[in-house]
Amino acid sequence: MGPMAAKVVPARGMRDVLPVDKARREHALHVIREVYRSFGFDEVETPALEELSRLESGQGGENEKMLFKVLRRGLPADEALLPGEAADLGLRFDLTVPLTRYVASNAAALRMPFKALQIGPVWRAERPQKGRYRQFVQCDIDIVGEPGSLAEVELVTATHTALTRLGLTGTTLRLNDRGVLTGLLTGCGFAADEHGSVLITVDKADKVGLDGVLAELRAKGFAEEHVAALEASLTALLPLRDVRTPGVLEAALPAAVPAEVVARLREIADALAVSAPDLEVAFDVTLVRGMGYYTGPIFEMSLPGSSSSIAGGGRYDNMVGRFSGRDLPAAGFSIGFERIVDEIAPRDEGVSAIALVHPAGADAGTLLRKQQELVAGGARVALVKQAKRMQPLFDALVAEGYSRVVRARVAEDGSLEFSDPAPLGASA
Amino acid sequence: MGPMAAKVVPARGMRDVLPVDKARREHALHVIREVYRSFGFDEVETPALEELSRLESGQGGENEKMLFKVLRRGLPADEALLPGEAADLGLRFDLTVPLTRYVASNAAALRMPFKALQIGPVWRAERPQKGRYRQFVQCDIDIVGEPGSLAEVELVTATHTALTRLGLTGTTLRLNDRGVLTGLLTGCGFAADEHGSVLITVDKADKVGLDGVLAELRAKGFAEEHVAALEASLTALLPLRDVRTPGVLEAALPAAVPAEVVARLREIADALAVSAPDLEVAFDVTLVRGMGYYTGPIFEMSLPGSSSSIAGGGRYDNMVGRFSGRDLPAAGFSIGFERIVDEIAPRDEGVSAIALVHPAGADAGTLLRKQQELVAGGARVALVKQAKRMQPLFDALVAEGYSRVVRARVAEDGSLEFSDPAPLGASA
Repeated sequence: MGPMAAKVVPARGMRDVLPVDKARREHALHVIREVYRSFGFDEVETPALEELSRLESGQGGENEKMLFKVLRRGLPADEALLPGEAADLGLRFDLTVPLTRYVASNAAALRMPFKALQIGPVWRAERPQKGRYRQFVQCDIDIVGEPGSLAEVELVTATHTALTRLGLTGTTLRLNDRGVLTGLLTGCGFAADEHGSVLITVDKADKVGLDGVLAELRAKGFAEEHVAALEASLTALLPLRDVRTPGVLEAALPAAVPAEVVARLREIADALAVSAPDLEVAFDVTLVRGMGYYTGPIFEMSLPGSSSSIAGGGRYDNMVGRFSGRDLPAAGFSIGFERIVDEIAPRDEGVSAIALVHPAGADAGTLLRKQQELVAGGARVALVKQAKRMQPLFDALVAEGYSRVVRARVAEDGSLEFSDPAPLGASA
Repeated sequence: MGPMAAKVVPARGMRDVLPVDKARREHALHVIREVYRSFGFDEVETPALEELSRLESGQGGENEKMLFKVLRRGLPADEALLPGEAADLGLRFDLTVPLTRYVASNAAALRMPFKALQIGPVWRAERPQKGRYRQFVQCDIDIVGEPGSLAEVELVTATHTALTRLGLTGTTLRLNDRGVLTGLLTGCGFAADEHGSVLITVDKADKVGLDGVLAELRAKGFAEEHVAALEASLTALLPLRDVRTPGVLEAALPAAVPAEVVARLREIADALAVSAPDLEVAFDVTLVRGMGYYTGPIFEMSLPGSSSSIAGGGRYDNMVGRFSGRDLPAAGFSIGFERIVDEIAPRDEGVSAIALVHPAGADAGTLLRKQQELVAGGARVALVKQAKRMQPLFDALVAEGYSRVVRARVAEDGSLEFSDPAPLGASA
């Protein structure tokens, strides 16, 4: 390799998206957009850059540590500054902080309840690892201004419809409520300021099991009496999936869980049985959801045979209004776009992708008119110049979804003639 | 206003895109994507962040001065650094530098000619002014690896089709060639190192006229003999639009313009007359295109009755290959997305956008099932809670494109009943 041939790669942790993947991604986003739109969600867009002070306001939890900070413009080139003084903007690490800012900035234009769709890249300076990138797409819906469980039912029904439309069927919704968790821990004797730490451990139940959770709680030094009470409760609650039959959940939960919390979960599950009958809804006492801002029902969706979640959300009253000083109920649901996109089949070109093979120097006008004629008939048409060895090119085209070929040849009178479409064959 | 009610706005020079505008934008991008795709262009995506050294390699001209720089991660918080040392990444200011990097990074995966579509935001720290933002969308197509004018014909035909599909008809393509400009200036006696400065002035002809151009050239101190020769040439060339009739252009151009340059322009115009018969193609000797990297034909498209361009491009051989050390011919065309999007009609909902008005507390499952039924029939459906004063809400819905209303009421047996769709009326 010559000196210029040194390896050129995207910046650390970043990636290029190549054609077949990009086609799949844009197709999926289009389907998601159209489904949410049909359910009355309004797409909005916020800028990638927000003021640093908003991004560092504490709302983003651990994500704030992964902030890409942007250098203040117009800094004197010869004056040294501490990193903390040099930056005034940051790249958003999620779409929730920008939504909060949007609601404050556009309060006058909002028709309540405000049903927002946001799709866009976010940036986090995570340690680069295989399959994880520092720029990735998030896809959030939020309902702002609806205090009742209608919001949760809409979020889940619309998302379930979008995923089904993408061919992702047989999903399960795991359902819990922060009120269940708080009541459970209170009932077992944990003090309010211990709840955060206990929940971080309970959240690991799907990985380490009940024994692992209990061992970690003991290692953390929580009172044996409280851990033992939690063990008894979790033993009863862990196998419990049924949230709809009256009395079942109530019997297994401590009295410290308010009746209205259970009633709300039942209301959501009952409604989903009607609006999304093929969605399996299951109570899951170990569902915690990491972020501290949830205040009510929380839920995650997973694919059949998998416990890892492809979408997650919940109610987070009192946060969206914080930049505007308003007390606004809100609930949101976020599709893990990077997790589902590989599960979706590549965009199917059917028989409508055609390679139009032509001799070098063929009349461009005639060629393009023929291409346009085929395009008008609904085809995708790639112009391909005749070469000595066509098979490697045909193999590449077949891999890209092209399935037919039209050949242009120069007739005796010098005009271009076109064959009928024929199958495009890959080499064996 | 209370202390929390201080004005909350997007960061300086940034904007939020509200629902009606966002719907229009996404609809336009979808049409553009699908048209380019049907013409065989492959969409790719590059990351927003690139290494600073690539963004500052000189390829970006004036845009490099408007770079947003991103602070290096892991800087010691207590060690002061000069701004030049503190940043290692930057937000891309165009899609051309990333394309050059993409071609080098993915050389092995490219089927040549590589016909790329890139759509995405770019960032420039321009002085904020009305209607201009520091983040905006670019939409570029490029053909890499095709040295002949077939590339230019494809770029223009596909773009013209996309714009027509968006309702932007009656466009004009202004056409010139860097070879015409170089030959013209050489023929008039300007030295090669004077060409850049002369062209900057000629580029202003549509604003200041021929007299303004000549006055500026004289003020710049160029030799009167050369300016006078240019005056004679431009006087003959300025009214000249016809590029197709053999001999016309040749007669008006100095002999220093190579015959193959004029032949290539004629070839492009002849082909476009066949492939895009309703596109007006006109020679324009004052068309310069700002960027220094163009090497051959250059062109801009404008709307009827307007001289300001909505798309521009040209041939820029030898640049795309620079990070890979390969000598690659290339030509590109970029739609000025922010300029066209306001010219496009808002997305038409037809009669299929329905407000589903329901009493508070109505059964969520039944309501959502009804919504889903209407959605399955092709409608967009907004759930709207019954309120005392509906008219302001209806006015807002009509403004958003909703045109019908379905009313839910609780029947005597407690079940929900739905009316047939009726027209949704705005107040007079």
